[in-house]
Amino acid sequence: MTDNATVVASEKQTAEEQHRTKGVTMVVFSGDLDKLLAAFIIANGAAAMDVPVTMFFTFWGLNVLRRDGPVQIAGEKSFVEKMFGRMMPRGPNKMMLSKMNIGGLGTMFMKREMKKKNVYSLQELVKQAQEQGIKFIACTMTMDLMGIKKEELIPDIDFAGVATFVDVAKSGHSTLFIS
Amino acid sequence: MTDNATVVASEKQTAEEQHRTKGVTMVVFSGDLDKLLAAFIIANGAAAMDVPVTMFFTFWGLNVLRRDGPVQIAGEKSFVEKMFGRMMPRGPNKMMLSKMNIGGLGTMFMKREMKKKNVYSLQELVKQAQEQGIKFIACTMTMDLMGIKKEELIPDIDFAGVATFVDVAKSGHSTLFIS
Amino acid sequence: MTDNATVVASEKQTAEEQHRTKGVTMVVFSGDLDKLLAAFIIANGAAAMDVPVTMFFTFWGLNVLRRDGPVQIAGEKSFVEKMFGRMMPRGPNKMMLSKMNIGGLGTMFMKREMKKKNVYSLQELVKQAQEQGIKFIACTMTMDLMGIKKEELIPDIDFAGVATFVDVAKSGHSTLFIS
Repeated sequence: MTDNATVVASEKQTAEEQHRTKGVTMVVFSGDLDKLLAAFIIANGAAAMDVPVTMFFTFWGLNVLRRDGPVQIAGEKSFVEKMFGRMMPRGPNKMMLSKMNIGGLGTMFMKREMKKKNVYSLQELVKQAQEQGIKFIACTMTMDLMGIKKEELIPDIDFAGVATFVDVAKSGHSTLFIS
Repeated sequence: MTDNATVVASEKQTAEEQHRTKGVTMVVFSGDLDKLLAAFIIANGAAAMDVPVTMFFTFWGLNVLRRDGPVQIAGEKSFVEKMFGRMMPRGPNKMMLSKMNIGGLGTMFMKREMKKKNVYSLQELVKQAQEQGIKFIACTMTMDLMGIKKEELIPDIDFAGVATFVDVAKSGHSTLFIS
Repeated sequence: MTDNATVVASEKQTAEEQHRTKGVTMVVFSGDLDKLLAAFIIANGAAAMDVPVTMFFTFWGLNVLRRDGPVQIAGEKSFVEKMFGRMMPRGPNKMMLSKMNIGGLGTMFMKREMKKKNVYSLQELVKQAQEQGIKFIACTMTMDLMGIKKEELIPDIDFAGVATFVDVAKSGHSTLFIS
């Protein structure tokens, strides 16, 4: 019986261990600088502690994956798609604070403080996240809705729908909705 | 010992299975069209994959459960309750985007795109969620605070407080706060 | 074998029990009255049900921990730090609604309704949370970024970085991002 108890205990431990390292899943819905900073700092922190992290980008969050500047795309965009594309920020450098933006002034001051205090910029945090092996998934449904094409996004990202997200979230220990 | 190990393994599997199907809990705090679309798409996606889903509606999120148009209620509303009632959107059709609303113009364009691209409207997603057996719980405390009466909300929803939410969240694998 | 099965079953139960009481972790990112009310009502509700709760305050959420009125601090603040300090609300009494604020009018009406309907104020909820033993952690990285000093915050809080948050979240059953 001691043997069996040991087996049980060790199996239990393994299960717990597995549970511990199950990972963090994020729905990155927001396209605001401050919220994205928080999301990426948590994501990179978790990854540095060997916790698997998956980031699922949807709606305004997709903009953080956009390449800087206009991109030549195959096919035509509709008027509304072009309008959305022009009005939404292109990439991590263009994001604004959700509060105290004051026409960009607050964002400028915040960025200056970040540089002065050696806080990584959002652009650097995104790069680090990819280097640490954090999985980026772009939501194909909202890409289609907003008229964002694959070639407009940065490389090394996956494309998937809500089913993939649910699957990933099911096996994780924390799911954060960054709205 | 092989027998016992098998028992252990199979029991472990059952526990894991249970863990897998434990479910998604959402606090629907927001009343913004885009955030609600994301919430309901995730909720419906999870339910379609046989994951039990519970949505707990509080604060501005309660507005998605409101019936369209004024409702005859028993009793009187205070001045502030009437004011809140008139200013807050009535039902999924009245929700606006949290970003790029531009006085309703952005919302109108987004809705047109959704129709054009065969994305379900928020109204349809809410209906689907109920048809799929997703549990809707309206937070009684915030209903009281905002002066929203039970007869003003759509049918087939439960009414409960924070204790019920904590209980549901405890047994789930993911809890999303949609703010 | 019955014995062993019993052992397995009881150990399984213990593991499940542990899982059940694992706790709620919150990232309090927002500094909006309505979102903070929801966060603290959930936190206090969970704590009352003996669920361990940890609240991790970052960005605008740090403002809920600020003492009322200016505080004499050791050392100098930079111009930008002073500006942030003056523009951000000092403590739970100064928070505004994220919607229908209408220059403070909506917030005033909401607070009046809360008093009239015996809903605890945010200030009372924060006090209750500390009395119930909810752990408050202030994010040192964002404190440094925004120029918020330890002596400007209320007593009985911990100071830590993202690694501590990830550790706490790993052992919890729910993680809520209040944005």
